Amino acid sequence: MTRKIVTLLTDFGTLDGYVGSIKGVLKSHYPNADVVDISHEVEPFDIRGAAFSLHSYYSFFPKGTIHIVVVDPGVGSSRRPLLVRTAQHYFIGPDNGVFKFIFNREAYTAYQLDPKKINNSRSSFTFHGRDIFAPAAGKLMQGKSCEEIGTRLDERTEIPNVFYQKQSDGYLALEAVNIDRFGNIITGFSRRDMERMNKYAIDHVKVKDFSTNTLNSYYAEKNDGELMVLWNSMEFLEIAAVNASAAKILKFNRAEDRVLISIR
Amino acid sequence: MTRKIVTLLTDFGTLDGYVGSIKGVLKSHYPNADVVDISHEVEPFDIRGAAFSLHSYYSFFPKGTIHIVVVDPGVGSSRRPLLVRTAQHYFIGPDNGVFKFIFNREAYTAYQLDPKKINNSRSSFTFHGRDIFAPAAGKLMQGKSCEEIGTRLDERTEIPNVFYQKQSDGYLALEAVNIDRFGNIITGFSRRDMERMNKYAIDHVKVKDFSTNTLNSYYAEKNDGELMVLWNSMEFLEIAAVNASAAKILKFNRAEDRVLISIR
Amino acid sequence: MTRKIVTLLTDFGTLDGYVGSIKGVLKSHYPNADVVDISHEVEPFDIRGAAFSLHSYYSFFPKGTIHIVVVDPGVGSSRRPLLVRTAQHYFIGPDNGVFKFIFNREAYTAYQLDPKKINNSRSSFTFHGRDIFAPAAGKLMQGKSCEEIGTRLDERTEIPNVFYQKQSDGYLALEAVNIDRFGNIITGFSRRDMERMNKYAIDHVKVKDFSTNTLNSYYAEKNDGELMVLWNSMEFLEIAAVNASAAKILKFNRAEDRVLISIR
Repeated sequence: MTRKIVTLLTDFGTLDGYVGSIKGVLKSHYPNADVVDISHEVEPFDIRGAAFSLHSYYSFFPKGTIHIVVVDPGVGSSRRPLLVRTAQHYFIGPDNGVFKFIFNREAYTAYQLDPKKINNSRSSFTFHGRDIFAPAAGKLMQGKSCEEIGTRLDERTEIPNVFYQKQSDGYLALEAVNIDRFGNIITGFSRRDMERMNKYAIDHVKVKDFSTNTLNSYYAEKNDGELMVLWNSMEFLEIAAVNASAAKILKFNRAEDRVLISIR
Repeated sequence: MTRKIVTLLTDFGTLDGYVGSIKGVLKSHYPNADVVDISHEVEPFDIRGAAFSLHSYYSFFPKGTIHIVVVDPGVGSSRRPLLVRTAQHYFIGPDNGVFKFIFNREAYTAYQLDPKKINNSRSSFTFHGRDIFAPAAGKLMQGKSCEEIGTRLDERTEIPNVFYQKQSDGYLALEAVNIDRFGNIITGFSRRDMERMNKYAIDHVKVKDFSTNTLNSYYAEKNDGELMVLWNSMEFLEIAAVNASAAKILKFNRAEDRVLISIR
Repeated sequence: MTRKIVTLLTDFGTLDGYVGSIKGVLKSHYPNADVVDISHEVEPFDIRGAAFSLHSYYSFFPKGTIHIVVVDPGVGSSRRPLLVRTAQHYFIGPDNGVFKFIFNREAYTAYQLDPKKINNSRSSFTFHGRDIFAPAAGKLMQGKSCEEIGTRLDERTEIPNVFYQKQSDGYLALEAVNIDRFGNIITGFSRRDMERMNKYAIDHVKVKDFSTNTLNSYYAEKNDGELMVLWNSMEFLEIAAVNASAAKILKFNRAEDRVLISIR
């Protein structure tokens, strides 16, 4: 029996045993499932954070990996349980935006999961992670096709990139999609986004009272506590400080503050 | 070499490397051990929380799974190191109540683990998780029988269900066994508990200043912030609020407050 | 394809998906990699804590295990990416002290990893965990030798044991290398350290206003809340309290306070 990789990203924490039960369902469907914890510490209901996190790891996994994301404020409501297939991977989770970066960057086919085709032994309405998403992954590992467990969606659930806006002064205002635990301010603006606009260089960066014309390549190019701008390892524009928290230094508030850039 | 599943639930945290050493012992005994993290973030010494968590995941794992639980305030004292066998699973941990839901719900055989039959290379007295429980699981994976590593216990360590009491006014006072990270108040009272009393419906629910005669099935039946009562996905009675914390809304204190219900 | 064990210890947290991407790289290099989470909750940049944690679990893993440690304040600077081989294990991480206990206790050969031999598809400068350390482990799993991915270091990067000093009054002043989540104060002084000095017993222990001439073997030898001194399960000298936090009782400050012992 081939090993099959399933990654798990949730906002459940581990304490309640919910994640444990999802793992049990995966192993019961397919004992050779290789379940990889990504995180269960997503802020409750933080869809944007989950979308960003998924974006940073999914592409590193081998062909055939199934990525499950359960961050789902609307569980039980009318949002659709989704299965997304790309050339390399499968994605399973709610149709609420957690896959927005996947939709932006990959050619894909989307399916609405059909609970009756996935799990007729149970009829829970409170825990889709365990009772729909995990068994759907189980069916895929057992060799079922996407068509056998879901209905292909004709319309595309394309979600526009809402992570930056053009201002009247020509600057782009970039949202921070993440402030990581080191205090780096990570924008949702990638080198690829810039190139799509036929722009190839950044002229100027302003974040609150910090401003610079140069981008750095290495953290070590600056001294401790100094701020810098760089394309990070995921090719997103990032504000960092050497061995210190850029977010703290700038008193950066993710909800209100923006990173302003001019490009050419 | 067949893969064998071992789940781990502890209150150790991951920082000290204790859990790492347990995993190392499991892999050293049986390289093909599939070690599944449930949680290591149980509140230190919270036996009740661990018992509840175990209850919510164990049954979803395939036949033959070994469940290790190490939440053990009395390590080194006279409490017994336990091995419990049910029709489907093995359970390894201290005899301090962590298995109380298993004893309530499953037919079982219990064994007192014999350290000398498990681990004669070490004689640590401070870390049973690594030096007794993990090697015991290792021996089982290697094919040893329960009888070869422990002594069958004749008396049953049955622990009564202490999670609800009948009041003089006829109401049942239910303890909250858990408040999950979303703020749902989860009682230890299951639909099965009710049916054992030959009761089949709930007439009335009171929690502090909230009171209702109806149970809901879906979170989506209510509006944001509204309270509701439902049988949750584990068939326990739960007080929830739509996209909000029921515990916060009610200022519910797990130690003092009770969910009162009348049934018929 | 044989299963190969890789352990992961980082200070990344799990939220950002960094650790997820490391796992993806490991699985992409070697699908049968058995990736074992130790912890991702090391305090940011706490090299000493990581060194101590590694020390407590590495030896329990089977021969051939690869231990990756990524706690790396100086990433991008001149510190060397390291591969260390001992009789039983491989260690991969920065040359910043995370392996100091390994260097103290094991015969080893050290190599400086050569990024160009490991990963020519990417040239990230901000994330060595994903772009150098994980692919280095991948190459080892694929069967490459240490020589094929790194350059042997002639000089030994021996780091002296700085965890205790001799005072003028003859007492040894022991640093606490860890205060675990139960509040146990764990020193970096092992029974083996003592025996190397041809000393075989402890005469007297002083920690702030607590003082004793006796060592205990079991937590249960004392009553709740009482302090005791013992060789813990890793054979380090530890100050513990029964079902209570020794660190809280003593108001022990890891940075300032020391455990004083006289030995004979």
